[in-house]
Amino acid sequence: MLLCDIGNTSYHFLDGERDFKESVTSFNPATITQKVYFISVNQNIQKKLQNLENWIDLSVYVCKEKYYETMGIDRIMAVEAVDNGIIIDAGSAITVDVVKKGKFEGGFIYPGIKAMEKTYKNISPALDYSFNFELNLDKIPKNSQDAISYGYLKTLQCEVLSHDLPIILTGGDAKRLIKIFPKAEIKMDLIFTSMKELVKSSAV
Amino acid sequence: MLLCDIGNTSYHFLDGERDFKESVTSFNPATITQKVYFISVNQNIQKKLQNLENWIDLSVYVCKEKYYETMGIDRIMAVEAVDNGIIIDAGSAITVDVVKKGKFEGGFIYPGIKAMEKTYKNISPALDYSFNFELNLDKIPKNSQDAISYGYLKTLQCEVLSHDLPIILTGGDAKRLIKIFPKAEIKMDLIFTSMKELVKSSAV
Repeated sequence: MLLCDIGNTSYHFLDGERDFKESVTSFNPATITQKVYFISVNQNIQKKLQNLENWIDLSVYVCKEKYYETMGIDRIMAVEAVDNGIIIDAGSAITVDVVKKGKFEGGFIYPGIKAMEKTYKNISPALDYSFNFELNLDKIPKNSQDAISYGYLKTLQCEVLSHDLPIILTGGDAKRLIKIFPKAEIKMDLIFTSMKELVKSSAV
Repeated sequence: MLLCDIGNTSYHFLDGERDFKESVTSFNPATITQKVYFISVNQNIQKKLQNLENWIDLSVYVCKEKYYETMGIDRIMAVEAVDNGIIIDAGSAITVDVVKKGKFEGGFIYPGIKAMEKTYKNISPALDYSFNFELNLDKIPKNSQDAISYGYLKTLQCEVLSHDLPIILTGGDAKRLIKIFPKAEIKMDLIFTSMKELVKSSAV
């Protein structure tokens, strides 16, 4: 079964055990002739794919009543896979969703690592640093690199930990964020697992 | 006495009781012939002003030992004016500095409102919203505008409140941030007050 989770920057494929990414700007989906089950938060690409019969949009099969209208389908699929916890999907955006006893409570969106580094750099060349993920967040910093790292990481950590729920990390930057959420569980295949489940249960 | 606090986007003047701003890109400082006491976090402009005799750089008179080398002079001046509290200076960047019993404990830098709205918009056109400052931050949101507003505001609020110190708000966006820090005190002239004090005490 070929699955594809399309984000703002890439097509993320899972072909059996093998996963790989293609850029949304350069990849031509018509080059794939086998059946692809996909979800997409990228509206332009979602529209294009309507003309390709072998690309099956799984969002059609999701019961969306529990969610809100403009909620990204990737977030919905992640939430569907979790019964109790706070899900952090770290990609070009970081989405944070809270599920309690199978019920979606709500969620928020924080900028991804790359986007936020660029933000600081654009504010001032004096803030052009990579984030320091080794930073001790229990101590308020006294240098510029740590001052922006703390501004980005401690604020997110503070909010997430306040929910006191099991933390599930997924997305391309999950392995970097584990540094500030050491008790979190990394589930790289969370969305794909949920997509497979949907294909089976909906008899697509 | 003419004072000027130069940031990344504007010259902020105080002339007696009247304050006004000029753009860093279009304003020519040579058009001012009277004496100006200034501080600048904008390195390019600071260099230019070295050639103008009537522009007096106050940063020279600050005892910088208590601070760190690359700390912005605006933050230093704000901290100098506070004995106990957490200072939030909301401009193109939001700087947050902690002072306890006259001692600078450290600080962090968070993106300003405009910069962060642009960040979300650049991640995806689906996130192109202004922030909702009326949002109830005690409830995790269920729509896109509130999801980014909460991502930006609740994370900052969570970290700031965790210090349990009196909050002092200053900078151009102080009156917007008071919504999420209702117990804070707004001191729009914090930096200028500190600059006046320095002029007097240093006999510049």
